[in-house]
Amino acid sequence: MGLTLGELADAIDGELQGDPGCVITAVATLQNAGPGAISFLANTNYRKYLERTAASAVILKPEFAQECPTATIVTANPYLAYARAASLIVPPPSSRRGVHPRASIGKDCVIDDTAWIGPNCIVEDNVRIGAGTQLAGGCFIGRDAQVGAGGVLHANVVICHGVSIGERVIIHPGAVIGSDGFGLANENGQWLKVPQLGGVRIGNDVGIGANTSIDRGALDDTVLEDGVKLDNQIQVAHNVHIGAHTAIAGCVGISGSATIGRHCMIGGGAGIVGHLEIADNVTVTGMTMVTKSITTPGVYSSGVPAQENSDWNRNYARFRKLDQLARRLRALERRFDAKE
Amino acid sequence: MGLTLGELADAIDGELQGDPGCVITAVATLQNAGPGAISFLANTNYRKYLERTAASAVILKPEFAQECPTATIVTANPYLAYARAASLIVPPPSSRRGVHPRASIGKDCVIDDTAWIGPNCIVEDNVRIGAGTQLAGGCFIGRDAQVGAGGVLHANVVICHGVSIGERVIIHPGAVIGSDGFGLANENGQWLKVPQLGGVRIGNDVGIGANTSIDRGALDDTVLEDGVKLDNQIQVAHNVHIGAHTAIAGCVGISGSATIGRHCMIGGGAGIVGHLEIADNVTVTGMTMVTKSITTPGVYSSGVPAQENSDWNRNYARFRKLDQLARRLRALERRFDAKE
Amino acid sequence: MGLTLGELADAIDGELQGDPGCVITAVATLQNAGPGAISFLANTNYRKYLERTAASAVILKPEFAQECPTATIVTANPYLAYARAASLIVPPPSSRRGVHPRASIGKDCVIDDTAWIGPNCIVEDNVRIGAGTQLAGGCFIGRDAQVGAGGVLHANVVICHGVSIGERVIIHPGAVIGSDGFGLANENGQWLKVPQLGGVRIGNDVGIGANTSIDRGALDDTVLEDGVKLDNQIQVAHNVHIGAHTAIAGCVGISGSATIGRHCMIGGGAGIVGHLEIADNVTVTGMTMVTKSITTPGVYSSGVPAQENSDWNRNYARFRKLDQLARRLRALERRFDAKE
Repeated sequence: MGLTLGELADAIDGELQGDPGCVITAVATLQNAGPGAISFLANTNYRKYLERTAASAVILKPEFAQECPTATIVTANPYLAYARAASLIVPPPSSRRGVHPRASIGKDCVIDDTAWIGPNCIVEDNVRIGAGTQLAGGCFIGRDAQVGAGGVLHANVVICHGVSIGERVIIHPGAVIGSDGFGLANENGQWLKVPQLGGVRIGNDVGIGANTSIDRGALDDTVLEDGVKLDNQIQVAHNVHIGAHTAIAGCVGISGSATIGRHCMIGGGAGIVGHLEIADNVTVTGMTMVTKSITTPGVYSSGVPAQENSDWNRNYARFRKLDQLARRLRALERRFDAKE
Repeated sequence: MGLTLGELADAIDGELQGDPGCVITAVATLQNAGPGAISFLANTNYRKYLERTAASAVILKPEFAQECPTATIVTANPYLAYARAASLIVPPPSSRRGVHPRASIGKDCVIDDTAWIGPNCIVEDNVRIGAGTQLAGGCFIGRDAQVGAGGVLHANVVICHGVSIGERVIIHPGAVIGSDGFGLANENGQWLKVPQLGGVRIGNDVGIGANTSIDRGALDDTVLEDGVKLDNQIQVAHNVHIGAHTAIAGCVGISGSATIGRHCMIGGGAGIVGHLEIADNVTVTGMTMVTKSITTPGVYSSGVPAQENSDWNRNYARFRKLDQLARRLRALERRFDAKE
Repeated sequence: MGLTLGELADAIDGELQGDPGCVITAVATLQNAGPGAISFLANTNYRKYLERTAASAVILKPEFAQECPTATIVTANPYLAYARAASLIVPPPSSRRGVHPRASIGKDCVIDDTAWIGPNCIVEDNVRIGAGTQLAGGCFIGRDAQVGAGGVLHANVVICHGVSIGERVIIHPGAVIGSDGFGLANENGQWLKVPQLGGVRIGNDVGIGANTSIDRGALDDTVLEDGVKLDNQIQVAHNVHIGAHTAIAGCVGISGSATIGRHCMIGGGAGIVGHLEIADNVTVTGMTMVTKSITTPGVYSSGVPAQENSDWNRNYARFRKLDQLARRLRALERRFDAKE
């Protein structure tokens, strides 16, 4: 346990200023680090803690190296370098293998010998589980579903029938993949459920947050391409398509058949209307509602920042009559023009 | 397996143009259909795929029949007709019956012989489960609760004590029905939990989405009338009353004691403030906040569509001072009036 | 079962007007109460039901006592007094003790003899469960976690490894505490998961709603101080700190490293941006987005109330060009000034 600073600097491809033999056994924030710990400076909000840190070393950008009272590993992307260092210093818990006696396994399943099916997991017929994949406990895997190698399904995850999940996918507790989409046909004012016959296809290296839900397609599949990262409490409706390496923050809702490009970032609480397309490299800020297709990369917003309540109420009262106000301005302009 | 076009046209009450003996074995989208599949055109966004579809038949409105290169079933409501056709061509999985040996059943329960209680279900004392109802696995049914006939509880659904659920109700994974409402009384700055002594009554033919939560009433019951359809990730607070055949999209939050009428449609991410009433036949668009009772049927909105971020920031900066701007306009009008 | 009015008035420290020997066996709303039931008037919306109530007694403020047709218990805070009365009249279900034979218990756990571990609970190694704490069923408690005395974990709650929970904490079904935070480092357009090495510390007397999720810290802990109350469907990101006795309504999203003060109230559907601070005694109204630190107690808003849709569209169309409109006003002011 523990690596030397020299080994770490090599592993994360950074430039070490300090004793390469110093042993690092922990990671910590600048404020809370002590001897033996390595820290990092990525968000400049925390720069104020740098000069007094008790860490044994700090990963940071070249411009802050001067201010650091201890050893430094200098790199262009300290957060990335820290992520790698942390994985080396604090390795993930060792994986288990086998099928817990209280797991229920259906017929015709192919479960790799190196996978772990924890207590109270329910694996229905004809399911495939790849090498090393870990099901913590209380998970449900519907018939004909498959989960690729190297995955982690935390407690109480539900994967519905026929869902296909790639390799190294991490799914957090309570997430549901493959529930029926909200397909309803109206008949004289009453709703008839439309059968949801598509599936869900999830690529490699995807992450899915706690209590997030992803619906199966109505006919074609709902798709998350490789490297998509979803936070907690997200709703992905039927036939949504999310491009590779797009990251979506908590509480976002995405309506049916929306197509989101690659390398997008969607802020927390945003809403995406259905049947539209968002180009690659689009950023949508928090609590924004996207109602039309976005064809140009860039940043898009409609989240309304808070004001002190009485100011807000006064402004909102004007907003309720903004069209009238604009007409009054136009009328005044005309009167003025007529006068001149 | 499979029906002829003639049988299908009869069953969905449409007018067939084409070979009544043609056998249909699948349903598919216009883009992805092949021989033996029936497709449909309901959303005109997809009209562009009609003329090249390889489907054996298409369900559509009369005005589009001309454009279709293959057999047609013409009907006024193609989506409804498709929903019916799909249910016939792809029947739901056959239901199971019995109690899985790893289900735990309490005392004095009345579980119909034709119901299925899957592995790891926990059914507490004095519960009733109706004919044919299917509990997939990992479900919890609290004491004194009842679930009517023909229902489906997907994996890991939680029904708390005393909740009453009608017939043919479908509840998706991770949904929670009957959790305590958020009732708190303040005592010198600290919160005392108010006992939540009401229940939840859910009518017939209701649908409830994945990870949705519905709180029990504080004293009287929380009520969902017949035919209500809830999408995923919805929060229904204590003593809410939702009228028959109202459909609510994902991520909506409904505060305590709100009453929503019949045949309403609430868009995704909307919020409904507590202790108000919404009339029948009201539509609330996505991400709208309803803060006052709505007494007239119609469409109501406050969801703010996205703009390019720099435009948004400029406009929002003006909004923050909109009251001032309105006062300046008024002042100018007065100066002008005084001059004339 | 049942208490006399005299006993009740003493217990809740109210002033009784009526027969102290009258026996009360139930609590009910003013509208639905019958003989033997006690009701209360706290929200003046319900005052209209007072004069016709059939309750045997009503808890209310002095100013409404005149209007009450039956016995009264007068108090300054009827809702608080009612909460206490209800707890006495309808005691919570008696607690169970022991470990259900279908619970799975790891090594080196310390489970108090008076605790109850329900069916299908999974308790991993080295977990501590305090006196009297009730785990309903299907709960997962990760290694090294602890739950203090007097707690209630409803069905299918997930507590991840190392999480620490205080005394008398109530957690509703489907809640997840201690899932990984959304920590991602970008490497050439792809996201690398940043190990989430912190924990979650939850104080005493905290309440957590159904399907709410609370992420573990990245390095330091996510913290909920004593008496915090969270409603359903809330997302608490990594390293959030919530001060004592703050109440947060449903569907709120709180981004990483936000610090919320004590005695705050956050309305439903609000969003709090990360890395900011909210002072003590701040109220944030529903669907508001907090984007900057709030240093002064008070009420803050940006939730936009609904309008009839055509009004809304007209006003929003003006809003999209509000900056232009403001410039036109400025120009007109200048023209006018130049004239005078």
